[in-house]
Amino acid sequence: MDDTPLSAATGVPRPGLPRPGAPATLFVCITCRLAPDETEPRAGRRMHDAMVAAHQRHPDAARLAVVPVECLSNCNRACTVAFAGPGRWTYVHGDLAPEAADDVVAGAVLYAGTADGLVPWRQRPERLRKGVISRVPPLFPA
Amino acid sequence: MDDTPLSAATGVPRPGLPRPGAPATLFVCITCRLAPDETEPRAGRRMHDAMVAAHQRHPDAARLAVVPVECLSNCNRACTVAFAGPGRWTYVHGDLAPEAADDVVAGAVLYAGTADGLVPWRQRPERLRKGVISRVPPLFPA
Repeated sequence: MDDTPLSAATGVPRPGLPRPGAPATLFVCITCRLAPDETEPRAGRRMHDAMVAAHQRHPDAARLAVVPVECLSNCNRACTVAFAGPGRWTYVHGDLAPEAADDVVAGAVLYAGTADGLVPWRQRPERLRKGVISRVPPLFPA
Repeated sequence: MDDTPLSAATGVPRPGLPRPGAPATLFVCITCRLAPDETEPRAGRRMHDAMVAAHQRHPDAARLAVVPVECLSNCNRACTVAFAGPGRWTYVHGDLAPEAADDVVAGAVLYAGTADGLVPWRQRPERLRKGVISRVPPLFPA
């Protein structure tokens, strides 16, 4: 279940609030569109919902929080997610789609299992080997 | 002076270690190249060095640490920087060049002056209005 706190004002999830006890966060852009698809709900929202379902099924779900975000500023290479966690490099992955949900959750759980956020390239699910948009070092390395 | 700690093993700066007391960090990719320029030092290194100089001249330098990084994974839209700080959204900016150093440092100081990392678009230096590569929410909002 996605129990991300909602903003009282807008009903939109408060970005960046990790689930207590989860060592890493999978941020999912819910405003991403896959052009020329103009249908609602948007591809980003559908991908998020598929990731919540994949997360529920994952045996190591407790390692990870799945948090929806409105725009990760990667609109041209949607759909988009980010992996983040204390002491870890932050990774933004693009060129995704709702069908990638299971692979991305599996990759995020691997990420959560590292101390520094660096998952060796060969160990990553196929969908996460290409489409790296950016990475940023931790402010406070573990 | 750039007093970023260096790795004992490699002499390469330890990424992500903010200067004590600086509320925000400007990460600068020193491995970026501007194709077809193959000269050394690379454009990223030259941009970093120009930013260290711009930072020294800035009256609000104490707000910011300038930290070199080997690869922010935005090679196709070099040169690249990231703005990060506790409680703040992390921004990656690309399509930069050594000549942008003063503007980027000015923008990073504005970023450092916010609680959440959100600098209104109109207040940003021109070079930072385009070229946003990604943004990621804070894990622990301020």
